[in-house]
Amino acid sequence: MKIGFVQMRPVLGDTAANIKKITSLIEDIGDADLVVLPELCNSGYNFKTGESAFKAAEEVNGSQFIRRLEELCKQFNFHIVSGFNERDNDRLYNTAVLVGPGGYIGKYRKLHLFLNEKDLFAPGDVGLPVFDIGTCKIGMLICFDWIFPEVWRVLALKGADIICHPSNLVIPGLCQRAVPIHAVTNRVFVVTANRIGDEDDLTFTGLSIIADPRGEVLSQASSDREETAAVEVDISKARDKNATARNHLFDDRRPEEYNRINKK
Amino acid sequence: MKIGFVQMRPVLGDTAANIKKITSLIEDIGDADLVVLPELCNSGYNFKTGESAFKAAEEVNGSQFIRRLEELCKQFNFHIVSGFNERDNDRLYNTAVLVGPGGYIGKYRKLHLFLNEKDLFAPGDVGLPVFDIGTCKIGMLICFDWIFPEVWRVLALKGADIICHPSNLVIPGLCQRAVPIHAVTNRVFVVTANRIGDEDDLTFTGLSIIADPRGEVLSQASSDREETAAVEVDISKARDKNATARNHLFDDRRPEEYNRINKK
Repeated sequence: MKIGFVQMRPVLGDTAANIKKITSLIEDIGDADLVVLPELCNSGYNFKTGESAFKAAEEVNGSQFIRRLEELCKQFNFHIVSGFNERDNDRLYNTAVLVGPGGYIGKYRKLHLFLNEKDLFAPGDVGLPVFDIGTCKIGMLICFDWIFPEVWRVLALKGADIICHPSNLVIPGLCQRAVPIHAVTNRVFVVTANRIGDEDDLTFTGLSIIADPRGEVLSQASSDREETAAVEVDISKARDKNATARNHLFDDRRPEEYNRINKK
Repeated sequence: MKIGFVQMRPVLGDTAANIKKITSLIEDIGDADLVVLPELCNSGYNFKTGESAFKAAEEVNGSQFIRRLEELCKQFNFHIVSGFNERDNDRLYNTAVLVGPGGYIGKYRKLHLFLNEKDLFAPGDVGLPVFDIGTCKIGMLICFDWIFPEVWRVLALKGADIICHPSNLVIPGLCQRAVPIHAVTNRVFVVTANRIGDEDDLTFTGLSIIADPRGEVLSQASSDREETAAVEVDISKARDKNATARNHLFDDRRPEEYNRINKK
């Protein structure tokens, strides 16, 4: 199958403009099977008030943004994972949604909120779901989640073949160095779709990346241009957890020893 | 404090030669406070029979090798973490020992045995101890342990400031790329002391590395020369787990969500 990303500069607070931009960029990708879009790409990121963030959010049910993703998935017969500023009654969540040709499938809500996101969003409360879309199993993380090794591990142990990682990264290059390491230690594919551009005091760092279960970088975008990429991957490589003929990375784990209490 | 490594080519099955070589190399380091030596550097690595591995091993009590490390620690007033082919009655362990100016302190036994090590050594059975040596807290991992993110995390959560990582790495450069990522995600210092040279069909990859809690590489050795390095570090940087003013990497963890079972 072919997996890819859209790297873009969302327009703050303008869902219609973001839908238009995504539509235009996604047409570049062509025959991909899975496309990952950046964090909060329906709304932009750097809201200065809860009110402005709220105005730019939508509920999953009835979302114009998700409806458009559904149309694109149907038109191109692929799946999309996209960042989504999600309203749920009086709360906002920094969410990633999974959509396919048959419509909306499911969501993940960011577990680890970064800096001022803590003023705008409620922390994730749906755990770390893994979705079987037939060709592969998909897990999702969002941006700053990358620095918590637990979440990559939990998704891999639950059977995720591809971890889709919508992002609005601001620390130059650090996550992009970590992604291939999380990929190789968990033997999964990772697609980090980052955004570019500035919003007020923040500069987003691009360098969107696709890494494979051996820690190789299959594709990496520029730091400052809107662009897309898609690469052919063999999902069976994510299901082979053997680091050597005698080392299965999951079976070799020693949880009983990790938890051993040592007497001084 | 100053932390460093010895990168060397041990002589297979010749403890006396290895003691001599370590003594000579360690005199280069001068005023370090903590020196890390490679995996199994008392004995070499690539034993073809259990008998030859057994002959090159020592029990901790009565070990000539550890006695010599104790003398060096006393002479230079520093601590050493060293790989150690350890005999315990009729078993061998791939062990790391911590020795200080006051003598032997404690040990770690490799939890994840690599390839044919499974024929020679018993798997580790002392968990993941952390030792407080006054100036800092020390955890130990050995070589292939690097690919299991759990062990870095457990040591960091137990308070390790420095993770000492005696190694005999054979996969070119992969662990050395991962070490700064494990360092930054856990906000610890890491010292990977690797060996060089060949033993039969194996080539060891050198590139010993010291990484800091921000993921920076403070020192890296060549791939093929015996050498030493030591760098001044500020241990308080390993005790500051704040990634931002509002993101404490341990307090922000969401273990209740990591374990959430999702209803389909």
